[in-house]
Formats: sequence, C-alpha cells, structure tokens
Amino acid sequence: MTKQAAILGASGYAGAELLRYLVPHPEIDVVWVTGNRNAGRALDEVHPHLETGLVLQSLDADTVPDLDVAFLALPHGAGAAASKTLADRGVKVVDLGPDWRLHDAAAYDEWYGFAHAYPDDLASWVFGLTELHREEIAGAPKVANPGCYSTAAILALAPAVRAGVVEAQGIVIDAASGISGAGRKLAERYLFSELEASYSAYGVGKHRHVPEIEQELGGITVTFTPHLVPMARGLLVTCYARMTDGVDAVRESLETAYKGEPFVRVMSTQPATKQTSGTNTALIGVGSDERTGLAIITCALDNLGKGAAGQAVQNANLMLDLDETLGLRGPAVYP
Amino acid sequence: MTKQAAILGASGYAGAELLRYLVPHPEIDVVWVTGNRNAGRALDEVHPHLETGLVLQSLDADTVPDLDVAFLALPHGAGAAASKTLADRGVKVVDLGPDWRLHDAAAYDEWYGFAHAYPDDLASWVFGLTELHREEIAGAPKVANPGCYSTAAILALAPAVRAGVVEAQGIVIDAASGISGAGRKLAERYLFSELEASYSAYGVGKHRHVPEIEQELGGITVTFTPHLVPMARGLLVTCYARMTDGVDAVRESLETAYKGEPFVRVMSTQPATKQTSGTNTALIGVGSDERTGLAIITCALDNLGKGAAGQAVQNANLMLDLDETLGLRGPAVYP
Amino acid sequence: MTKQAAILGASGYAGAELLRYLVPHPEIDVVWVTGNRNAGRALDEVHPHLETGLVLQSLDADTVPDLDVAFLALPHGAGAAASKTLADRGVKVVDLGPDWRLHDAAAYDEWYGFAHAYPDDLASWVFGLTELHREEIAGAPKVANPGCYSTAAILALAPAVRAGVVEAQGIVIDAASGISGAGRKLAERYLFSELEASYSAYGVGKHRHVPEIEQELGGITVTFTPHLVPMARGLLVTCYARMTDGVDAVRESLETAYKGEPFVRVMSTQPATKQTSGTNTALIGVGSDERTGLAIITCALDNLGKGAAGQAVQNANLMLDLDETLGLRGPAVYP
Amino acid sequence: MTKQAAILGASGYAGAELLRYLVPHPEIDVVWVTGNRNAGRALDEVHPHLETGLVLQSLDADTVPDLDVAFLALPHGAGAAASKTLADRGVKVVDLGPDWRLHDAAAYDEWYGFAHAYPDDLASWVFGLTELHREEIAGAPKVANPGCYSTAAILALAPAVRAGVVEAQGIVIDAASGISGAGRKLAERYLFSELEASYSAYGVGKHRHVPEIEQELGGITVTFTPHLVPMARGLLVTCYARMTDGVDAVRESLETAYKGEPFVRVMSTQPATKQTSGTNTALIGVGSDERTGLAIITCALDNLGKGAAGQAVQNANLMLDLDETLGLRGPAVYP
Repeated sequence: MTKQAAILGASGYAGAELLRYLVPHPEIDVVWVTGNRNAGRALDEVHPHLETGLVLQSLDADTVPDLDVAFLALPHGAGAAASKTLADRGVKVVDLGPDWRLHDAAAYDEWYGFAHAYPDDLASWVFGLTELHREEIAGAPKVANPGCYSTAAILALAPAVRAGVVEAQGIVIDAASGISGAGRKLAERYLFSELEASYSAYGVGKHRHVPEIEQELGGITVTFTPHLVPMARGLLVTCYARMTDGVDAVRESLETAYKGEPFVRVMSTQPATKQTSGTNTALIGVGSDERTGLAIITCALDNLGKGAAGQAVQNANLMLDLDETLGLRGPAVYP
Repeated sequence: MTKQAAILGASGYAGAELLRYLVPHPEIDVVWVTGNRNAGRALDEVHPHLETGLVLQSLDADTVPDLDVAFLALPHGAGAAASKTLADRGVKVVDLGPDWRLHDAAAYDEWYGFAHAYPDDLASWVFGLTELHREEIAGAPKVANPGCYSTAAILALAPAVRAGVVEAQGIVIDAASGISGAGRKLAERYLFSELEASYSAYGVGKHRHVPEIEQELGGITVTFTPHLVPMARGLLVTCYARMTDGVDAVRESLETAYKGEPFVRVMSTQPATKQTSGTNTALIGVGSDERTGLAIITCALDNLGKGAAGQAVQNANLMLDLDETLGLRGPAVYP
Repeated sequence: MTKQAAILGASGYAGAELLRYLVPHPEIDVVWVTGNRNAGRALDEVHPHLETGLVLQSLDADTVPDLDVAFLALPHGAGAAASKTLADRGVKVVDLGPDWRLHDAAAYDEWYGFAHAYPDDLASWVFGLTELHREEIAGAPKVANPGCYSTAAILALAPAVRAGVVEAQGIVIDAASGISGAGRKLAERYLFSELEASYSAYGVGKHRHVPEIEQELGGITVTFTPHLVPMARGLLVTCYARMTDGVDAVRESLETAYKGEPFVRVMSTQPATKQTSGTNTALIGVGSDERTGLAIITCALDNLGKGAAGQAVQNANLMLDLDETLGLRGPAVYP
Repeated sequence: MTKQAAILGASGYAGAELLRYLVPHPEIDVVWVTGNRNAGRALDEVHPHLETGLVLQSLDADTVPDLDVAFLALPHGAGAAASKTLADRGVKVVDLGPDWRLHDAAAYDEWYGFAHAYPDDLASWVFGLTELHREEIAGAPKVANPGCYSTAAILALAPAVRAGVVEAQGIVIDAASGISGAGRKLAERYLFSELEASYSAYGVGKHRHVPEIEQELGGITVTFTPHLVPMARGLLVTCYARMTDGVDAVRESLETAYKGEPFVRVMSTQPATKQTSGTNTALIGVGSDERTGLAIITCALDNLGKGAAGQAVQNANLMLDLDETLGLRGPAVYP
C-alpha cells in the first residue's frame, strides 16, 4: 500500500516543488495540503500548473489526519509547534524550515533572534543532509531538512575538511542563488523589473545558513556571502580553503566520499547551475590557485531540488524504508 | 522485456530532451545514439548534464542495430534517407524533422526549396499530432512528429475550425518561442548578449511550419508570424479567428475535443509558457474581442516537450503498444 | 536661463526614467519631485541609482512652486485634478497618465469604469504623439502623453491607414511588452520567479490602450492583444492589415511619413526591442504575407522611452520652444 | 574645433559602446571605424541600432588618417603593432586590449603565452585606471585601458590596501560578470540557450586579469575566481581581506579615496549591477564578517562602461585636455 503524505505550506515554491516530485511518485500519495492564507481554495488556483484535485486546508496541525509522513514548508518559527504536534502523534516529519536544524538552542537566539520553544527536543532531530547522515535518517521519525546554501556548502567542504586536506580555519564561501530562494514573498526587491539583468550581494556577514554549515563542518568558523542571480532557480557555492596536500588530495577526498552516491557527482569540468535544473543532483567542481595554495571547490544544485524538496523526498524515502531514489531519477531540464 | 531505442541526432537540444524523457522511462531503453560531428565522444562530453554511459556513433543508418524504435532529430533533408533505411528494416521510426510531415511533395519544393527524394513514400507516414491522429499512430511503423509551432497552432484551432464555430478564412496566428527552438546552431543572432532582454519577429510571411498547419486545418490558408522571446524554452500561439456563434461555442468545441486528454488542458485563465516547462502538456486559453467578433485562442507548451521530444515519446508509446503516458507524467518545473 | 520642472509621481519607473533624461538635459532642471507614499525621503533612497539631492514631496499640487513645466506620472484618475490645478496656474503640463488622452468623455466610463471629473476640459488637451501632432504640441500648455502600446501601434499603422494602402477594418494588433510596463506595482504575478522564462497573454479583448489607438487611427475598430515578455523594458507591436495596393505602397507610406523624423526609423530588417533600449527611438519593420494579402507592420520601442518618458521630454521640448531633440540623442544600450 | 577619433575594432561590443558614448559627445567626432571581417560594410549593418553613416574600414593602421585619438578594441596580441604605428605618428591612443597594461614583459609570457613584441615600449604606457593615475593620464599620448574585472577589483581594494587597513596577503576576489564580457565571440557556450538561467565559475585559478590587479595593488598575490551571470552587461566583485583596524577604517579609506570623484560612489547599501547599467559609474559597498575579521568589499559597474568604453572615454577626455566627464554624465538605465 502506498504511503500517505501531507504538505503543510503548499502555497509557496518549496511546497509546489514537493508536489512536482510527489505527484508522479510511485509509493507516496499526497492527500492533504495546507495554505493558511489560501485555505479553502483549490490548489490549482494558487499553482495553475498543478492539477491535483486537492483543496488547501488551514494550517491547524490538529486537523491533519494520521498519515505516514508530513512535509513542512513553513516560515521559520511557524513550523516548530506543528511539527511537534505531528511527531508526537506518530506522523513522520520532514521539516524544510530551520526550526530543528541546529543542535544548540542558543544559536536560535543569536542567528534568528528568538528563543527556541522546545530546546530539549532539538537533540531528537536528525540533520537531513542525506549523504552525511544516511544511517541516522533511515527509519528516523524526525528529520530537519538543510537549507539550500548549507546543502551545497557542506557537500563541497565536508569531505576535504574531514580528510584534513584543507585547513578548517579561514574558509571563505561565496554563494549565488536564483530568486526562488527568497520564496514567493511580496517585496519590491523581488519584482521582475528590479532583478532582471542584475546581480548583487546581500546578507553580508550574517546569513542564517551559517550556523548550519559550521555545525556540520565540525564547529569551525566560516565567512559566507550570498548573492542574487537573475534566474528563478539554481544555486552555486564557490569555496576557498587552504590546501595542506595539493589539489589532487582534495579531489580524491571528494571522489571517495561520493563514490556510488546517486545524487552527487564530482565533475572534471566546472558545473553550471542549469545542469541541475529540476533535479535532486549536486554537481561538484574542483580547482585551485596554485600560486596562493587555495583549493577552489564549487557545488551547483537546484535550490528547490537537492536544496529543498528533492532532498526532502530523498529523506522521506529513507524514513519510510523505500528505495532512496524513488521519484527522483531523471536528467536535468536543459536547456 | 523493455523496448530498445536509438536516437539519431543526439547532440542537439531535441536529442537531449528525448534522453531526459527516456532515461527514466520504464519500458524504453536508449542503447544507441548518433551525433555526426561528435562521433566517438561520450554523450556526457556533449551534454554534461546527461550521465548515461552512451558513446555517440556516427550517423550511418546501416550501422544502427535492429532495434524497436528510432527517434530522428536531424536537420531537414538529412533524415529522409536514414528514416527510410531504418523503416525498411522494420525499425519503427519517429522522425522529429519535417521530411515526412507534408502529404504533398510539391510543398517541399515550395516551402523548403528542395525536391523530396521519396515523394511516393509520403503517404505511408502518419502526421504525429497525437490528439488528432491517435488511432492511426497506434501500432504505426512511421510517424512524422509535428513542428513545435504547428503543434500549438493546430491544437488551438482544429476543434473550432472543424466544429465550424470560427470561419476557416482569415485566420491570423501570432506566435512566440523560446530560443531553443532554433536548436544548438552557432550563429551570432543566437548569442546570449544579442537576445537577452530582446523580442523580435522573424520569418515574416514565410515560416516553414505554415504548410503543416494548413494541411491539418483542412487545407485553409493562414497568416503566421513567429517571434523570439528571451527564454530558452516555451512557446505560445495567439490565434485570431472570426466567430460564427460566440465565444461559448468556441470554448465548448475545445473542451469537447480535449475532454479526457492526458496532455491537453483548456483553462479558465490565460496560460503562461512557464506552466508547461519540462512537460508534455499543452495549455489552452479562450478569449474574444466582442466588439470585432474575433475569437482569441492561445496555446502554451514547451517547444522541446509537447512541441518535440515529449510528443515523440507519446507517439512512440502508442506505436509500441505501451501506455501512452509512460514516462511523461509529472507537473511543470515551476518557477 | 534654464527651465524649471517638477515630476509628480517620481517613485515609479516612468518617474525615474524622466530623471534619467532630465538630469543631463541642458535646458531643463528638475527642482521638485513628489512621491506620496515616500514623501520626506531622499529620492536616492527610493531609486539608489539616482543621486540628485532631491527630496520627495507629498503630492499636493497646491504646494508645487510656479515652475515652467510639470510631468505627471500618476495612476489613472489621480492625475486629473493635479494637472488641472497646475495648468490653471500657468504651469505647462505633460501628463503621462491616461486622464486626458481621450477626446470622448464617455470612453472613460466604458474603458476605465469611472466618470471623468472634467469632461469639458478634454478638448483643451493635445494628444502627445509627437510625429502626428507636432504643430499642436509646439507651445501648447497641456499635452496628454500617449500610452506605450498606443505609441507603437499608432506609429506603425497611421501612415498606411491614412494613405489608404491598408483597409481600416479588420486590423489585428498583437503586442508584447517588458514587465516595467506594469510599473513598480507589488503583485505576485510580477515577481521575478513568476515571470522569468515565461510568456503569456493578458487583458485579452479589453486593454485600455485600445480607445487611444482607435481615436488616433480615425475612429476605426481594432483587435488588440498584449503579452508579457520576460524582460524589464522593450515593447513590440505586430500589426496585421489587409493591403489594397501591395507591400511597396505600405512601405512607401511609412517612409514618406517619417522621412527626416529624428526618432522614427523605417528599417529594411525586422527591429528587435533591444535596439531601442534606453532611447526615444521607434523602429519600424515592414513585411507581408503575399498569399493572404496582409501587411505585417512591426514597431519596436522602449516602453519607458518613446513609450513614456522619452516622448514626454520630446513634447516638453516643443512646448517650451526648445530644440525637440534636446537630451534625447544617443544610441541604444546594446547589448 | 572638435577632436577627431578612430575606433579600431568597431564590430564588437566594446566598439559599439564607444560609439554610444561618442556619437552624442560634444567635443569628439568619430570619423573612422575599422572591422576586419566586415570591412566595406556599413556600420549599421553590423550594429543595426547604430545609425552613423560610417563604413567599416579594414584594419590597416597605415591607412588610418592623422586624427587626434584612436581607440583600439582588438583581441589581445592584435593591437600592439597597430597602436605602436599610430602612436609613433602622433595619434593619441587608448588601447582597450591588454597589450600594454602590464609593466613586466615576462608577465605576457606567463599569463598570455606569447612573447611581447615591444617589451621596451611597455614603460611608456600609462595604466588607465583613471582614479589612480589621473595626473599621468592627463595629456598622455598612450593609455592602456584596464580590464573590466581589474577596474572593479582595484577600485574596491586599492584604498584599503594602501591605507594598510586590510592585510595585503590572503585576499580573495570572487567576481561575476554578464556575458558581454566574452565579447561577440561565436562559441556554443555563449549561446542564449546555454546561459539563460545558469551560473557557473570559469577560468578558475588562471584568469588573465590577475596580473593587472596584482600590479596595481602593489605587487601582492591574490586569488581570483570569475563567474558568468545570465545577463548581458554588469559586473560585481566581492573582495575578502583581513582587517587590521575594523570595518569603519575600511569604509573611511574608501570614502577618503573617492571623495569628489564623479564616477565612483561609496554606498551605504549593497550595490546591484543594474544600478550601473549604461553608465561609467562604479558603486562600492562595504561590509564585514565580524566573527572572522574579514572585510567584504563589493564593487559593481557596467563591464562595457567603467569596465571598458566608458573609462576609455574618460581617459580620452583627460588626454585631450577636455572636461573629464564630457559625454559620460547621466543616470543608469534602470530598470
């Protein structure tokens, strides 16, 4: 029998992308969707490209039926109570928001500016970077899906940092994302006319994905700067780290770590975000500046795919004891 | 046992899109790909986003193994001999080029400027607009896949013309396409810097998709103007036709024609090309100018999907007695 | 002594574009800008690319000083009273909004849904399509600047219609515009992620520029369909009209009409919107479908240039007895 | 009397942009343009948006008349002989190519892979970063216009490095450019369909602008990674440097350096490339990561403006004893 799923927060882009993966998924059926502002409306009024017959429900976790799994794609802060309610009732939860990603409750005060409501529960959630925590995720009841930038940065850096082939200190991560990373938020700065043909940095020195990255890289401190690129989806990080043993050792650490991985590929060329469009794939490029001794590791992915909904489905497959790749296979939409 | 397929002309965008649909297809395996200029190279050198293990062969139809089906994505003129060779050997052929679309050999002289090499064979090919010719396509050995503009224009107009709810004379079709419609051709006018943030008409009064459209609409004469839109994929036609019985009758003709169709949807709003990105779906919008009595029917689709590779797979499914929708389900890549 | 100018509604895109033309203008100084929601803020907070030292004032026409000319870039309905107040005080007014474009007050009820507050004043305004009404505009106190679509459609069609080389009945105008045509309005449909890589029709059968076009083409009835193109600026109309005397006569009517015009050029190729970016220039292309007897006339312009602020400055130059081309010369920003 | 100018290499984008600035320039007239492949053709055949009446001449420096100034926009290597010929005849030369930028002839072997033909002449050229070398440029006969990335990186870093408020070692420069930076070169990787909605790194660890940057920053060693952004024009560098005295000192060094500069502005917000479109302006943003002690300095400019043609005109104005800002004033084309 197929598994039944809910999506809480289905009005936004991550919610729509979950449906893109789950509508044709052979083992998971979405039977419940919520969208607070749009409660009562047919889903295809909000997403005309999604013809599902589903109607948006209000966001009241108590009314969600007893399903196998719930995906939460809610703003930070909003998902904590809902996910707790569902998890306590035995519904497996993949939370795409940040509320359960950090092990240290104090980090929420520092980076998000609020006191976490359930600090004692943080330890019971698994950080859902699948390639790093696959065994903990398999069968787990509660998985905190990583941020989009975090997924790319951790995939690019973790193998080399862990292998000691780059120094853990002084790492610089320069990142660029398509606009859908900002969600479907109404703000003048996200209007088409403002962003078309423009590129800029934002959140300099203070982006909220930093503590996730630092946690997963072993508690080191990194410098991270995100930029907006005039494209709807796609994300690339360019990571600078001092090599201890040459670029071949860096490449080898990555190739070893991702050998056999279905959704991570170390390339011989520089990846372009378009090569990942519509997929759950992360592509990694390896380079160096031999004069300065820095490794330059890039990682491209679809911020809504491996950076959000794709990885959430990958995690849900594992949590539900399904084939990890179900519903996620297939090449990129290119060009 | 799964069916085995070849793609002749896999270096281009239509070839890549065929692989996007066929790599995860449960019943068709691509085992042979050709790319004349790139013969001998691994496919993923030419398309880094496609990791298939396939190597590009030279385009010599005699060396193609005896497979179940061959997809031809070759420039006009180049495909005729190859498809004839393969078809004569019993390989089912879907030709995405124009060489077999027109029933009247003289039209090739007029619109393409060459004498068709096999005029007597033209009658043995089925025009592969699936929704119009499904019964002939099922089990057929040879299908001529329609052009991208033609697919949209015919889907938009055929039901209303056939029902007589619009006049067959005086129809104007204004069309706009993303740049991938021009293929991977190296020309200054297709450089990013030339096309970004630009919109223009081309081929005014003489586009080669016109005779296909006119043939399928019953031999009428239409005015057709294509435009280039700064996007890689997506196509929309806006069709103007004089109503004989009001806009409700026009809408009804379309809804009746496409009731139950898996890949054509008549919408209550105006479709946007992005709602079809990466899919085999055509979306139709119905409007009118009541003051002038014109119906204004729009049709959006992905020029590489329903406009090329998607419809080719849809046809191949039918030709091979498979479920018509195999490998083609799933919502659009949006946003 | 230089002329002094005000811009009422300087927070939007048309207001910014007026400043782009007027800041380096040798004979007009902008000394007063208003922006109701942003009153009290420095202009460069609202438009960081405009460093003028100006502070936005509230929109109270009574507080505007006695200047030589005022440009109004306000939503429809909002500009009527302000422009009347200023004009009555002897300030020359170029109104970029629609409040004074239509000679027939009833058309406001029909197309805009409101009763015009000053129907008797309509006759005292000149319709500011410079090339058609240059003599009336020269020295005039009140000019109604045309809409962006209207400018392109009228420039494309008026010469041929007036010369009788196309039939006045049955004209179809298919139009496409960059997103800045919608202004800086906050709406989900104008978000970058919604519009990137998408093309769609809107306002089918009921766009408010229609009555302007019909008025200036001599009271005929046209069919007009606008589309949104994924670019910030640029607009192209493709006009279909039945020829009475062949395409050479159509071309000749256009070349004769625009011979010597500084800002309209009849081309031998099809114009692209990018060729007009940042300019006050309109480019016209002439084609035909000889099989159906339709002329296909295209006109490309920058919707913020000749379609709004550029033409407003052109008109102001004439109204103030300055060289018509002052501040408007210079090639397009291409690529 | 106005100065007379030639543009050698007018078929490309930098050549067109020179004409965009020079056609309306009040004191410089372009009377000679060359374009080797297009010799004999009217300039507006190659650039339909440029209606100048000029005809492209072949690139033979001997046939260029004795003019006041020549702008060279030629591929690297091609410009050395031509500029030498012209300079020897007393024509002032602004070379937009790299042939005279580096003082050290050996650097051409290392970075460009060719032996410089005139190593002894290198010392007689001024590096044309106007804000750093204004006094040497004024009246100079030969100016080597900087590369686009170099201009942004040097403007961002030179004041802080010189003031000692950042460490000179360990600087990382992450850069991103619109596609016109690659010129009008025909290559598959520059096709619209390949680049739309894509972002990628290139030239990792070996870009040819590095030696210019290092030379102008005092012979230090930097790490530099360029990226391609899906937009035609615009460039932004994000520079990471260890602070010695806090971010206020960094900001102060920049504000002091550029106080009164007509074309460089230190902003209180993060600049976006679009805010510089079509201008000769560079916008600088100052930030820091206080946890890691890195200054994060950004600089946005138009790669064809301050990054090429705009700065070339700025330099030519100085070389010809004209007002430095002639022909260069005016706000950005925004949106």
